[in-house]
Parts: sequence; structure tokens; C-alpha cells
Amino acid sequence: MSDHTQKPNGTDESPAPETMEGWYVLHDCYRIDWATWRRKGVDAQREFLAGLRDWLVSARGADTGDSAAYIVSGQKAELMFIHYRPNPGALNGVRRDLMACGFADMLIPCYGYLSIIEVSLYEASARARAMLAREGLTPDSESFQERLDTEIAKQTSQLEARCYRSIPDREYCCFYPMSKRRGEHDNWYTLSMDERRDLMRGHGRLGHKYHRDVTQVISGSTGLDDWEWGVDLHSDDPLVFKKLVYEMRFDPVSARFAEFGSFFIGKAASPEELCAYIGQN
Amino acid sequence: MSDHTQKPNGTDESPAPETMEGWYVLHDCYRIDWATWRRKGVDAQREFLAGLRDWLVSARGADTGDSAAYIVSGQKAELMFIHYRPNPGALNGVRRDLMACGFADMLIPCYGYLSIIEVSLYEASARARAMLAREGLTPDSESFQERLDTEIAKQTSQLEARCYRSIPDREYCCFYPMSKRRGEHDNWYTLSMDERRDLMRGHGRLGHKYHRDVTQVISGSTGLDDWEWGVDLHSDDPLVFKKLVYEMRFDPVSARFAEFGSFFIGKAASPEELCAYIGQN
Amino acid sequence: MSDHTQKPNGTDESPAPETMEGWYVLHDCYRIDWATWRRKGVDAQREFLAGLRDWLVSARGADTGDSAAYIVSGQKAELMFIHYRPNPGALNGVRRDLMACGFADMLIPCYGYLSIIEVSLYEASARARAMLAREGLTPDSESFQERLDTEIAKQTSQLEARCYRSIPDREYCCFYPMSKRRGEHDNWYTLSMDERRDLMRGHGRLGHKYHRDVTQVISGSTGLDDWEWGVDLHSDDPLVFKKLVYEMRFDPVSARFAEFGSFFIGKAASPEELCAYIGQN
Amino acid sequence: MSDHTQKPNGTDESPAPETMEGWYVLHDCYRIDWATWRRKGVDAQREFLAGLRDWLVSARGADTGDSAAYIVSGQKAELMFIHYRPNPGALNGVRRDLMACGFADMLIPCYGYLSIIEVSLYEASARARAMLAREGLTPDSESFQERLDTEIAKQTSQLEARCYRSIPDREYCCFYPMSKRRGEHDNWYTLSMDERRDLMRGHGRLGHKYHRDVTQVISGSTGLDDWEWGVDLHSDDPLVFKKLVYEMRFDPVSARFAEFGSFFIGKAASPEELCAYIGQN
Amino acid sequence: MSDHTQKPNGTDESPAPETMEGWYVLHDCYRIDWATWRRKGVDAQREFLAGLRDWLVSARGADTGDSAAYIVSGQKAELMFIHYRPNPGALNGVRRDLMACGFADMLIPCYGYLSIIEVSLYEASARARAMLAREGLTPDSESFQERLDTEIAKQTSQLEARCYRSIPDREYCCFYPMSKRRGEHDNWYTLSMDERRDLMRGHGRLGHKYHRDVTQVISGSTGLDDWEWGVDLHSDDPLVFKKLVYEMRFDPVSARFAEFGSFFIGKAASPEELCAYIGQN
Repeated sequence: MSDHTQKPNGTDESPAPETMEGWYVLHDCYRIDWATWRRKGVDAQREFLAGLRDWLVSARGADTGDSAAYIVSGQKAELMFIHYRPNPGALNGVRRDLMACGFADMLIPCYGYLSIIEVSLYEASARARAMLAREGLTPDSESFQERLDTEIAKQTSQLEARCYRSIPDREYCCFYPMSKRRGEHDNWYTLSMDERRDLMRGHGRLGHKYHRDVTQVISGSTGLDDWEWGVDLHSDDPLVFKKLVYEMRFDPVSARFAEFGSFFIGKAASPEELCAYIGQN
Repeated sequence: MSDHTQKPNGTDESPAPETMEGWYVLHDCYRIDWATWRRKGVDAQREFLAGLRDWLVSARGADTGDSAAYIVSGQKAELMFIHYRPNPGALNGVRRDLMACGFADMLIPCYGYLSIIEVSLYEASARARAMLAREGLTPDSESFQERLDTEIAKQTSQLEARCYRSIPDREYCCFYPMSKRRGEHDNWYTLSMDERRDLMRGHGRLGHKYHRDVTQVISGSTGLDDWEWGVDLHSDDPLVFKKLVYEMRFDPVSARFAEFGSFFIGKAASPEELCAYIGQN
Repeated sequence: MSDHTQKPNGTDESPAPETMEGWYVLHDCYRIDWATWRRKGVDAQREFLAGLRDWLVSARGADTGDSAAYIVSGQKAELMFIHYRPNPGALNGVRRDLMACGFADMLIPCYGYLSIIEVSLYEASARARAMLAREGLTPDSESFQERLDTEIAKQTSQLEARCYRSIPDREYCCFYPMSKRRGEHDNWYTLSMDERRDLMRGHGRLGHKYHRDVTQVISGSTGLDDWEWGVDLHSDDPLVFKKLVYEMRFDPVSARFAEFGSFFIGKAASPEELCAYIGQN
Repeated sequence: MSDHTQKPNGTDESPAPETMEGWYVLHDCYRIDWATWRRKGVDAQREFLAGLRDWLVSARGADTGDSAAYIVSGQKAELMFIHYRPNPGALNGVRRDLMACGFADMLIPCYGYLSIIEVSLYEASARARAMLAREGLTPDSESFQERLDTEIAKQTSQLEARCYRSIPDREYCCFYPMSKRRGEHDNWYTLSMDERRDLMRGHGRLGHKYHRDVTQVISGSTGLDDWEWGVDLHSDDPLVFKKLVYEMRFDPVSARFAEFGSFFIGKAASPEELCAYIGQN
Repeated sequence: MSDHTQKPNGTDESPAPETMEGWYVLHDCYRIDWATWRRKGVDAQREFLAGLRDWLVSARGADTGDSAAYIVSGQKAELMFIHYRPNPGALNGVRRDLMACGFADMLIPCYGYLSIIEVSLYEASARARAMLAREGLTPDSESFQERLDTEIAKQTSQLEARCYRSIPDREYCCFYPMSKRRGEHDNWYTLSMDERRDLMRGHGRLGHKYHRDVTQVISGSTGLDDWEWGVDLHSDDPLVFKKLVYEMRFDPVSARFAEFGSFFIGKAASPEELCAYIGQN
């Protein structure tokens, strides 16, 4: 696995915020061809489900990543798989393994999204400084720099854990891609770094308000897929998706600068639940 | 069923209007593969129709929700099912049951929309205050606060009934999704709450003008699907859809801030009418 | 058939122009699956064509509406049927009857559009006043109001005839849907009624210039389909479509406020011509 | 064939430039279903190719029009046919004849475009006046009006020949549709005729610079298809397409007012080359 | 092979930057029909893979161009082939050869892009002048013009080598098409050449920063396909694609003027790796 935290030299003067990256992420969505399924005999159906279950069990057990399955509401997809892996080649591999299952005869590809989990390094530094301030340490204190370095290292280590996390174990998932607007008037990428920092700070407070009810996984996809970020919200109550996204829409950074792709709402399914859903008849 | 009225703490200062939610809603649309239908024998056709009818009868009889079928005009879909259920998982279940019918061999998925019935809590408070004003009670009256609390509770209870209502029993339905515009100049989400309230008030008056001829069901879908609201108009005369939507288009809130998705016009079909429509030849 | 001219109470103060409506209109377009057609035997082909012809003859003979068939140029569709009927349910019926034909095995749905023929009531009043003015009658004349009422009734009766007309019998048809722009700067629906009336008057003059060469049928579709109007131009010379639409594009109301959907150019085909076109080989 | 040069009365005051029209044009594009082709036996393949060749030979030999075939690069299409015919009905006929070929089993329709060759009448008048000026004749010369009429007639006759031309015989063709922008700020159709004339003059100079390397056929499609013009560039060197279109993009009339559809690059194939391309294996 | 460096006369006064062109490029993308693959017997599968491998080996060995295969992440495509060839006809040929493989039964076309490798001639002149300046030579030096001509010739020769290069041999490829914005306010093509040159200079510095980690191949497609450029980034670490494209997004020329198409991320596969990927089960 390549060292994702290594950065090209000289980025200090760059207006692009520093980020730390972790697992690559694939959202992999399918419709089910039920007419073909019904034409298979009972024995073949049983065999197909066993193969699908084995694949999902094995994918979830990956020691370098994680996998999960969801039943999607509506018609954009019927099944959504989320995979975390160390690189795109490994994601290709897990998808190729699914295609090797006999059940893949019933899978109609309908949507995929490639991204990579990311956290902002700015956050680590900001949290470390806030921690020291709460302890009464000021930049002119004797041990300030030493304590700051220690604290930043601690924070960075926590962020790194978030970059290589497992898929949150909640009942529902809401996935959507988004970009920052580059309109002729409202253009995120022509704002100064200070303007962007101020706008994002208010945004963060709002996310924090919901942090008990929802686990958020942000992945970057600029240069990897057609939007700039993928957002996964995981919660036991899907109403929280509506409350959170609706309230965020009034936040200036979303109101003026966010553009959204399609929303996928899935209900988590263990290998057994997935097979029960498909094989019920 | 989770408690949808529970709200995250501290939303008082939020610019997002408070809402109360009820049933989740799925609009589920299909084309019919008539060539495959014609190739089935008469006996198989009879069996398929019986299965479809049983499914629809059972779905309509749900004690936690409701279901209805429509024949859609034009080519965006031929059948539209509307389902009200307590959560997305239950909606997945009713759709899965349809897929288990042999008739599903003839169903080509073409459109789906997920949302949740919502009413504005602001409305409850506004109505309660209006009621007291009509009775001559002013905020400095002795019993004002007590009466207000009672009245709000009554109004809230009525709103809750609307959140968990059944599907209006009218001959025609008009469904369309919509969002508020977030343009670079006309941006709904950067208006102040007062501006939005004033704009919505005129909008409400217009809706009221048609209230005898049309039953309106508003469902929210921010964070659930690709538009922010789903709108269902139910009426015995489809011309009312044109009159209402056209007149609304001149209302400032629609003229400047509304963006519309596709319109689906369906004629309600009971289980028997649905089977008669399909099985006529 | 419901009374389409009945209007909700109190629309006088509405900025939406008063309209009178007639037949509902369905444009119903298909590609032909020629490979499947070739695989059918000669006898089956003959039987299919007879069924298609019977359906079209019967649809055209409807005493509550009209029907016509067109061979479409290009690849957006190969066949376009236009149906006029008293309500969407009746349109569903005629389309369902087509699907019952064996020939429907060869029909691939590709486009549909639902609308309702409309004329502006403002036109009736304006024409009546112009008529009286030509006779030298002024509003302060003794018999003015009486004559005006008579004249309006006459004009209204003529408009009603146009609302329930038959499909113009010309060699070519040009169909396209359109909407008035609701841009952030050029927004039709925020203009005053006077501004709109002035803009439409110039527009009307241009339409009049071509009235000998082309018969125009305007149908409204706000709230019924995805654009606000459907426009059918019927002419024996398809070049007139280009001349008229191009010249209109410079008219301020089109230049600034018109948005256009796809254009379908069809050559009218009688039941016999339709069968000859399909069955030639 | 209808008289295309006949114009409706009273267009003199119109802001729409006068044009002369000739052949109607159909661009008719297909993918090839190679899997089906491979499943046909060698004898059937030979028969199919013979039928396709006969159709193309016959279409090219039309005494009222012309036809040509191209192998398209990329995946927008694999085959593109261009047909010139006197009216849309005749274009329907040549396409119907292709569908009657057994080879049509392998043709998957993917794009079509209907237009009509046009030249600006303004050009005839401008050229005639320039010719007289070069001869030293001024408007107040005795024989000026007589000479002008003769010269305009000569120029008009040359333009008419261009309207009813054959398809240029060059190795490569570049086809794309385009429209003039009707933006809220940059709107071609609200410019004065003088502004448009000045802009187009610079545009013409640029086209002239490439006239030895490329033959350009402009066809109008306002009211006939979804863009306002179709442009065909024919050249033996496809690099000229890039050089010309790129340089034009800096010309003010394109920079501010041109909107482009998809570009199709095809290599001309005679009936024999077409059959060799398909039948190679 | 035509002489691509030949330019039409008189382009000196043109605002379009001079470019030198090399190989034509085709990006050719497919999905794999795994259900059909599974239905083939083991012997047939072996034969199909051998044919596919032979085709790729032969295509890569072309003495006038190059070819490479990639496994694409996500669902936009599963296989992407890149071909460099001297003209579009040769690209048609290599694609036709793929269609002649039995494996093509499993290939579902999903995306293609035609372009031509280009470098800016301005770059040659600028580099030559910089070289002389570093040597202390000023424009008024005796041998300046002679040395400049020699240096420009040397630089031009190096650029020409880049125009006819082979496909970079790196583990991952990121392909995306892009255009310069022609908005109503931010319009690249109405900027002066000086403004454009200044904007591009900063852009170039950023590209240079990543030059050790990524090899960039720019191809022009104005007049050839639907965007103005194709960009290929080749790197052993796909994270560099995200870092580079994200940082570029803040560069003024991208922030205000770049519009992007879809991003395709592929992992390079030799003929053996490609066959192993497909044939694993």
C-alpha cells in the first residue's frame, strides 16, 4: 500500500487545504433482474445465494478494508455495496469477484462511485491549539511548542484512525456526491482561504449538532470521479438524513456553494438478510 | 416506528422551518412489456393477474400505511403505485412483494421517488394564534398562554392526523417533484426567514382557493431523493391540475424560486380496474 | 365529459390569463423494431397490418375526438400518433387498444406528450371590442353593452369550436413543446400582465402572417407534462415550419422568453399509407 | 418538388435574414451489432452485404439528391449515412429502403438529424454590388440598376446551384449541429441586424481562409430539428477540422454566441469500401 | 501519413495559439457482459482470450502508434483501451479488428473519445529564449538570431518527439475531457492573448510541480469530439491524480474557466494481466 500521507514538495503556499487520505471507497449499485431470477430453478437459486453470501462474507472479512451491503429504496438501484480498500486495483478485484458469482447473472449495473476517505489536516492543528488554550498555555509559554508538537501528533494519529476506519454499523445509509459550485458569480475556488475557512467553520458546527445520531464519512473524489466529494451518512433513523441535509441547506456554504448529485438511501443488510431479501419467494 | 416528531436539540436558532413528519412515501413507476404479455398463454395471464390483484389488495389493506395504483398517461410510465409506509425498510418490503409476483416479468422499472409526508409546525402555531385573535383574546389577556397551549396542541394533533393520512380517493392524481432554486441571483436559501414566510403566505392563499377541487399531499425529500419535495395533487377533474399549477407559476415564490421535475398524470385504478385494463385482450 | 370551461371562483384578480380548454391531446411516438418484423412470416405480417389499420380507422372515427398517424423523419421516432380525446382516461384507452394489436410487438415506445387544446379568452373579448369599433360603436353608445355581450358570445362560440376541432388535414406536421423562460434575469412570470400582453400581440401578428400556409394548434400542458405548451404546426410545405419558427425567433417574446423541447417532423399517413409504408417488403 | 424559393408575403421588414433553400438533408447514424453479425452464416453475410451495397449504390444514383456513407470514429456511431433529397417524405423513403435490407438486423439506430441546405440571399446582393464596384460603376451610373439586376440574377443562380449540390467527395467528414446562444446576457436574437451582419462578416473571412482545404455545407434546421443549423465540413485532412473550428472559437460570433452539439468524424466509404469494412472477417 | 505540422497560410494574426500535432488518440471503453461470458464453455473462453490477447499484442506492436489496456474502477466502463495512430482511419481499423474477435460478443460499448496529441509551439520559442537568456545572450548580441533559430529548431524537434511518443508505462491512468468555459461572464475565448498567456503560465508551474510523479499527455479535440481537450495523467500512485487536480482547481485558469467531463481511472493491464482478469473463474 502506497504512503498516502506523503505530499509533493512545496505545497505550503498552495491555496488547496492539506488533507490526509485513507481507504479508497467504491459505491457499487445494481438493479436485480427478477424475471431471470424466477426462471432459474430452486436448486440453482439456492446455489446462487450461497455464492453471493460467501462473496459478501469474504469481502467483509478483508483485513485491509471493509465491505457492506444495502437494500436501496426507489428505483435508482436495488442493491448498493460499499467497499473500503487500499487502492483502486483492490477495488477492481472485489468487484471482479462479485462478477464471478453465478448470481451476477441477475445484476444489472446502474451506478458506481470512486473516492478516497479524507480528513483535513487543518483540523488536527486547530484541535491541538484549542486543547492547549483550554489548559491556559499561550504561544509565549515555555513549553508551548513542545506540547503543541505532541498534541498535533496525537490528533494526527486520531485522524489517521478515522482514515482507515471500518464501515459504520447503522441501520440506514444515505450516500450522495457533491461539488463546490464554480459559477460565474458564486465560485468557491476563487474565494480566499480565509473566506473558505470561515464558511466551513459554521458548516462544521451544524454537523457536530447531529453527531450523536449520525456517523459521517467524507471521501474526496476530485480527479477520481465526476463530483468532488462523496458523503455517507449512517444512522439508525433515516429521518435524520432529511433533518440534517435540510438544515445544512440554509448554511451559507451549502446555500451558495454546494451542488448535489443523486441521493441513495439504503437499508443495511447482513449476508443473511441480503439472501433472505432475494430468496423470499 | 421511530418517533419522527423528536428533534435534535438546539434547533430554535435554525433558519430551517420546523416540520412534523408522517408516513414515508414511495412513487413506483413501471412500463408494461406488452410483447412478453402477449406471449404468455391465457391461463398464465389469468394467474398473473390474480397474483397482481392479491398483492394490491394486500398492500392497500396495510394497517400501517396505504397503497394505490394509477394508469399513467403518455410514455413516462404506464403504471404508478403510491405507497405510504412507516419507514424505508417497509417500502422496500412492499416493492419486493411486487417483484415476487409473476406479473413482474412484464414490469419495466422506469421511475421511483422516495419522500416523507410533512407539514409545517409554524402552521399550527399560526392557526392557534389566529383562532385566539378571532375570539378577541390578546397576548396580554389573562388566560392567553393557557388557551394558546391548548389550541396549539389541538392544531398539532390535527396536523399529525394529516401526516398519517390515507391516500386521497380521487379519480386522477398529478405527481411532480420540485426544489427551491439556489441560483446565483435568485437563491431561496439565502433569503431571511421573514422574506420566505411572506412569500409562502401568498402561496398558501392560492392553494386554499382550489382546496375544494383538489387534495394536496406534500412530502419532503431533501436528503432522501434528488429533489426537495414531492407534490401529489388528487382531483376528480384533471383540468384543475393545469389551472392550479399555471396560476401558481405567476405567484412570486414559484415564479422566481421553484424548479420542477417531471409531471406524472395517473388515473386511479382499483385492483379490479387495474386487472381489467391489463387483461382486456 | 367534464365541463372544462368552468373556472374556480375569484380568478379575476389573478395574473394568469383566462383560457378556454377543449380536447386533451396525446402525442404518442414509437420506433419500429424492423428485425422482429422481418422474422414474422408473411401471413402474420398481413394479419398484424390489418389489425393496425383497423385500430387506426376506429380511432379516427371516434365521435368524441380524432386521431392521426405520421411517419417521422430522423431517429427520434418512426411513427407518431396524435389523439384528441375528452379526458386522459380516454387517451389511456386508445393507447391501450394499440397495445392490444399484434403489431405492438414491433413498437418501441420513445416519446409521449400530454396536453389540452386551449385558446385565450382575452382574445374573444378583444375581437368583440374591435368588431364594435369598426362599426363606429363607442363604449358610451346606447346599445354598446348589449352588442358587446352578443359579440363576445359569438366569438366565444367560435373559440369553443376551435377547442373541439378535428386534426388539420395537411401533408406535414411539426410538433414541439415549449415553455416560457423563468431565468434569473429574463423571467416571463415576473413581468406585469401589460408587458406580457404587449409582447404576445407582436407574436400574434407574426403567426397571422403565415396563417394561409399553416394551421396552428396550441395546447397547454402546465401541470400535465414537462413543458408548458405543446405546439402543432400543420402545413403542406415543411419549409414553412423553418421559415415561421426562424422568423419567430427574432420576435422579442421568443428571443428572450421561449425555451424549446425537441422538434418532431412527421408526414401524414392514412391507414392505407401507414400499412404500405410498413409492409412494403 | 415544392418551390422552396417562394416566400411568404411581406417579409421585407423582418429581422430574419432572407435565405434560399435546396435539398433536405438527413444525417442517419447507426451502431453495428457485431455479435449478431458473427452469428449469421457466411452465405447469409454475403447476401446481407450485397443487399446493403445495392441499396447504397441505388441511393447514390438518385437523380433528385445524393447519398454517401462514412465510418465514424469513436462510439457515438459506427456508420453515418448522409442523404440529400427534395423533401422529408423522400428522406423517409430512403431510410425505409435501408430498413428493408437484411443487414438492418445489425443496425442499432443512434442518431439522426434533419435539416435543409441554405444560403443567405444577402450574399447574392452583396456580391453583385461588389462586382459592380470593382468595375467602377456607382449607384448613380446610368446602367447601374440594369447591371445590378443582371448580376444579382447571376449570383442567385450560382447560389441555387450550391443549394442543389452533390455531397462533396472528400476523404473525411465532420458533422455537428449548432445554435446561436439565447442567453440572458449574450442573446443573438436581440442584437440589431447591423450588429449581426458585422459579426458574421468576420466569421465569413475566417471560413474563406480555409476554403481550399475544406468544403463546407450549411443546412438550416430551425423548426425541423433540435439545433438551428447543421454544419458539414468535408476535407481530405481531418486535422483541418480541428484547426478551423479552434480558430473560429476565438471569432467573436462563435466565442459569445455559438453553442455546439456533438461532433461526428467519419471516413468516407464507397459501397465497396463499406462492404469490405464490415465483411473483413 | 499527412503532414500535420503544415498550417494554413496567414495564421500569424490569429488569436488562436499555434500548436503542433502528432498521433490521433482514441479512448475506447467497454462494459463486459459477464452473463454471456459465463454461458460460454471453457474451450470457447480459452479461444476468446487467446484472440483478445493476440489483438492487443498486435495493436501494441504497431510501428505507427501504440496501444494499451486498462481495468477501469467503478461502473462507467470495465475496460478502457487507448490507441495512438496516424489518422482516424487507422483508429477505425484497430477498433474494427477488436470487433472481429470472438470476445467482442462480451463487449458492450459505453464511451469513446477522439483527439490528437498536441503541444504549444509558443512553448518552443519561450524555452529557446529562456535558454539564451541563461547564457547571457541578449537580443542585441551579435549571434543572437542565429543561436535563437538553432535553439528553436532543437526545442521544436523535442516537442515533435513528444507528439509522436508512446503511451507512458505507469500503473494507473486518469483520463478526462475538458473545455474552456464560454460563459456569459467568464468567457475564455473573449480574453486577450496576453490574459490567456498569463493565466496559462501559472497553470504550467503547477503542472511542473508534479512532473516527477505524473506523466501528462494533452490531446486537442476541438472539432473532433464534444470537448476541447482530452487529458491523460499517468502515475504509479492514483492519489496523485486527486492531489494534482484538486490543487489545480484553485488555479485561476481552472477555477474560472475549466469545465470537466467524466473521469475514468484505469489500472494498466498487459495482455497477460488482461486475460487473467477476465478468465479468473
